[in-house]
Amino acid sequence: MFSYLLIMKQDKILLAHGSGGRLSRQLIQELILPHLGNPTLSRLDDAAQLKIKSDRIAFTTDSFVVDPIFFPGGDIGKLAVCGTVNDLAMSGALPKYLSLALILEEGLPLADLERIILSVKHATAEAGVQVVTGDIKVVRRGEAHKIFINTAGIGVIPAGVNISGDKVTVGDKLIVSGNLGEHALAVMANRVGIEFNPALLSDVAPLSDLVADMLNVCPQVHALRDPTRGGLAGTLNELAQAAQVGIMVQEGCIPVTEAVAGACELLGFDPLYLANEGKLLVSVAAADADKLLAQMRRHKYGVQAQIIGEVIAEPKGLVQLKTSIGGTRILDIPAGEQTPRIC
Amino acid sequence: MFSYLLIMKQDKILLAHGSGGRLSRQLIQELILPHLGNPTLSRLDDAAQLKIKSDRIAFTTDSFVVDPIFFPGGDIGKLAVCGTVNDLAMSGALPKYLSLALILEEGLPLADLERIILSVKHATAEAGVQVVTGDIKVVRRGEAHKIFINTAGIGVIPAGVNISGDKVTVGDKLIVSGNLGEHALAVMANRVGIEFNPALLSDVAPLSDLVADMLNVCPQVHALRDPTRGGLAGTLNELAQAAQVGIMVQEGCIPVTEAVAGACELLGFDPLYLANEGKLLVSVAAADADKLLAQMRRHKYGVQAQIIGEVIAEPKGLVQLKTSIGGTRILDIPAGEQTPRIC
Repeated sequence: MFSYLLIMKQDKILLAHGSGGRLSRQLIQELILPHLGNPTLSRLDDAAQLKIKSDRIAFTTDSFVVDPIFFPGGDIGKLAVCGTVNDLAMSGALPKYLSLALILEEGLPLADLERIILSVKHATAEAGVQVVTGDIKVVRRGEAHKIFINTAGIGVIPAGVNISGDKVTVGDKLIVSGNLGEHALAVMANRVGIEFNPALLSDVAPLSDLVADMLNVCPQVHALRDPTRGGLAGTLNELAQAAQVGIMVQEGCIPVTEAVAGACELLGFDPLYLANEGKLLVSVAAADADKLLAQMRRHKYGVQAQIIGEVIAEPKGLVQLKTSIGGTRILDIPAGEQTPRIC
Repeated sequence: MFSYLLIMKQDKILLAHGSGGRLSRQLIQELILPHLGNPTLSRLDDAAQLKIKSDRIAFTTDSFVVDPIFFPGGDIGKLAVCGTVNDLAMSGALPKYLSLALILEEGLPLADLERIILSVKHATAEAGVQVVTGDIKVVRRGEAHKIFINTAGIGVIPAGVNISGDKVTVGDKLIVSGNLGEHALAVMANRVGIEFNPALLSDVAPLSDLVADMLNVCPQVHALRDPTRGGLAGTLNELAQAAQVGIMVQEGCIPVTEAVAGACELLGFDPLYLANEGKLLVSVAAADADKLLAQMRRHKYGVQAQIIGEVIAEPKGLVQLKTSIGGTRILDIPAGEQTPRIC
């Protein structure tokens, strides 16, 4: 009874919530399990025990430090689920299980934490994944910034699917699934207090269902990537490096809304370098490209999909952009950081 | 060449090291892969693709925020590997794969980061696990404290092994693998600037090999836990709750060195509530206890193992301590936090 009153009187995170003692357990019992509980997580064993019906799995991790933690179109909870789900999907895997590890700053309002956990709940439901294991640490005020979340994820790779950056092949077509730049702009504008009308929303979304649709019509896709930090330019360069091929993209084919283009001009950003959290890039044999594009456009997260370029033999490792006015320039990877703490 | 000079001139972490751009890639290529590289990690795909030769796996995660990041007997890197390896081992799994996600504070010396990565390397080698996927985020100065590490882990559960907190059975004997309290005391004493002679070292160690030995002689072990945050008292209470049994432990049988007992008296700590990072508690049928204890004492991490008590029917969910002078008291779980940022 005493301990119940203790948490009831609190509306903020205390150091003791991370102690492994009574308050840790209460936080888990009263705020985490009611929203995310399932037979595996609710055992609260040191590790989740999982049955796996495949001999090939995908495994990935990401930490999320986005600032602000709530932004137009999403929050750090939705981002933490979608980011890891999408990394699994990019390997062709069907995402199944997530871990959820929270680093909380002393003083974080419990209401904020609950809102984030609810957001995790909704995103996991949409993505068809379960949180099966987790961890909570609390650090003193000023030793972290509100909340950092790490998710790791496990997915099952279907037989016959073999996707990797080094499978990109000369002659491939490159398709992006939709409009670029929305996540980073929505976060940055919100951080500095700029409002757009209509509001500019983050595109954060789980792409596992879109990828499943794509693999249904075209299991032989060569490579999938989600252009997050570093943006499309960073991702194209990663592929060019991994497969030691050249890449030529057409500026005029890259989907960017007028709102994003305008905001980029205002803020001095280049949309090709901005992080996306609900978009993917696919490299596919030219013969399969139209069929795949048509399938992608039938999915709500692929309506704006476009073929943006192709893979060429030379110069190896280099990405070139054919500009709208007919010039060609090298699309280098960013050296620095346009937008810190964007994910 | 320019970018090479850029990193060479730097001896501290910059925001751009977390950008997903050129400096991120350099950090990975020049500091992470040389120490931790393996065919899976070095592909740098969004997710690691792993072959799994079992239909049952264990999956766990932990974030590490220990302060100071270097302490007598270990550092945050060794801790991050051992903590997750041990959580896997406590489910009876053979640890196989780790993820490694770093949240770095701008300004962290690169030399400190390299020392930590080297420590990760040595600990993974001892534990027989591979880092197969990872992530690096950088936050501004003052938004984190030097370095936070999250590791998630995957292990393979051998056929016939079925370990869980709710398997604890009335009549079971409880064994701890060695002396308690060393990790928390070593960290706390170092944080406040106290030195002991001889030095008090953290017990941080990977327990997977000890557990494998134990399961060899006794695969039917009921439950395994590592008494980290909340200490032995917290862990005993977790088991009593999970299995709805009573627990009676003998104070005089609990292994604590004189050095730890003395330091606890000095600093006002109770060793039963202090975190350990290289110890385990096992609940095993009485008939198997002596055989298991003998096997544990043959392992370097189990030399000091002791039977400390037994599982009783009533009162359910409660842990009692028979004191050295013959009294009995309830060993409650801690409400608060003796030692923040201990792991």
